[in-house]
Amino acid sequence: MKTPFLTLVGAGPGDPDLITRKGLKAIQSADAILYDALSSDELLDEAPAGCVKLFVGKRAGCHYKKQEEINQLIVDCAFEYGHVVRLKGGDPFVFGRGQEEIAFAREHGIETVTVPGISSCISLPELQGVAPTSRGYADSFWVLTAHTRDHGLSEDLLLAPKSNATVIILMGLGRLDQICALWNAEGKGNLPAMVIQNGSRPNERCWLGTVNDIAPRVAAERDKGPGIIVLGATVSQHPSYKSAVLSRLSRQL
Amino acid sequence: MKTPFLTLVGAGPGDPDLITRKGLKAIQSADAILYDALSSDELLDEAPAGCVKLFVGKRAGCHYKKQEEINQLIVDCAFEYGHVVRLKGGDPFVFGRGQEEIAFAREHGIETVTVPGISSCISLPELQGVAPTSRGYADSFWVLTAHTRDHGLSEDLLLAPKSNATVIILMGLGRLDQICALWNAEGKGNLPAMVIQNGSRPNERCWLGTVNDIAPRVAAERDKGPGIIVLGATVSQHPSYKSAVLSRLSRQL
Repeated sequence: MKTPFLTLVGAGPGDPDLITRKGLKAIQSADAILYDALSSDELLDEAPAGCVKLFVGKRAGCHYKKQEEINQLIVDCAFEYGHVVRLKGGDPFVFGRGQEEIAFAREHGIETVTVPGISSCISLPELQGVAPTSRGYADSFWVLTAHTRDHGLSEDLLLAPKSNATVIILMGLGRLDQICALWNAEGKGNLPAMVIQNGSRPNERCWLGTVNDIAPRVAAERDKGPGIIVLGATVSQHPSYKSAVLSRLSRQL
Repeated sequence: MKTPFLTLVGAGPGDPDLITRKGLKAIQSADAILYDALSSDELLDEAPAGCVKLFVGKRAGCHYKKQEEINQLIVDCAFEYGHVVRLKGGDPFVFGRGQEEIAFAREHGIETVTVPGISSCISLPELQGVAPTSRGYADSFWVLTAHTRDHGLSEDLLLAPKSNATVIILMGLGRLDQICALWNAEGKGNLPAMVIQNGSRPNERCWLGTVNDIAPRVAAERDKGPGIIVLGATVSQHPSYKSAVLSRLSRQL
């Protein structure tokens, strides 16, 4: 009988080369892999022959399995197969509920190891040429979700427009107009803004503009999937920022 | 003559297995590597024979080279050797000045590629068992430095205690008492607090406590190097949190 063991691995933002060497080694020694929606099957192909592979993720916003079911499945697989790799997009502890999976496994006497991943919230803006912090542009960054568990706007989202932080908002595209209104109310309508969908994937899409003008364009052109909103002066460092904003201004004249 | 090219690579927080596969491939095809202080030489050993390796980092808080010198050296090396890998601890765009290095190289006609790294500010708390966000504990996280370029306390640091975010502060250990006073003034003296030095290295040290009591202990026991401060309810999820806080309380009785 194999010793039950759990390695929680962050797969990174999509590009299979953005997994860590440590995460890759875990996959290569897995007896079972429980995985989320990933951009490619290349990471799963790294698993040894005979490794059990189970999809437990979300697709197009629909939960395929409930969190409680995933927790139980991790434990069951560990006792049945041995080394379970729980492979999660991005970083498992940034809005990833990794903590809950680790806690449940430990309650059942299973040893666990954590392998951080490249978080989408930081790396996708970076891959667009926008740094979360940048000398002279932003001394801090703040990562939030738009809504709370009871579906209201989070209190921190009301405070964030008062800060000088680069604000990065996940799960907020459906409320982009409300979010921009909060910044507008602080007199920050001209603050640079960026929205990314399908980051690091072949169908990646990026909108550039200001708090004033970005929401209607994104609403008209986005797909139904999730996206990342970035609000802050650092967005003006995007290589296409000046030309994008200038070309819209000249059309308005 | 080789084509000048720059790959900016995040090396991760210290453990050489926490580099990405993409970063590793860049090192393995480098003609020259400009590197910071890292925990091990293992990453440099991945470079091809004949690769030029130059140390340009900080050690114990001392800048070995000025940023302007590093920028120029990257350009000079790219024209002399070809593919330059600029290897930086953590993520190159989180307080890493990567943006400036990229911009300078592009001004000199050099093509660049960015490889994000595992950021220390997120991963070192995670490796201690503390997630930046965690359902029921924290819906957002905010990463700041303690001081501004003119050596004052940053405005955002005055706003942060009013938020519900997990607050992660870099370069703040010398002002830990001032920082804790800001949270105390908001009535948050009992908020869980954690300080990490030498994260993911063999001499890693972690202090657990509350805003009220952590500063004098850290001041008495820390070394002179940098560290990470984490303030927020999520710190109470550290596996040793309860026993650490209870044992101090019982000594006080």
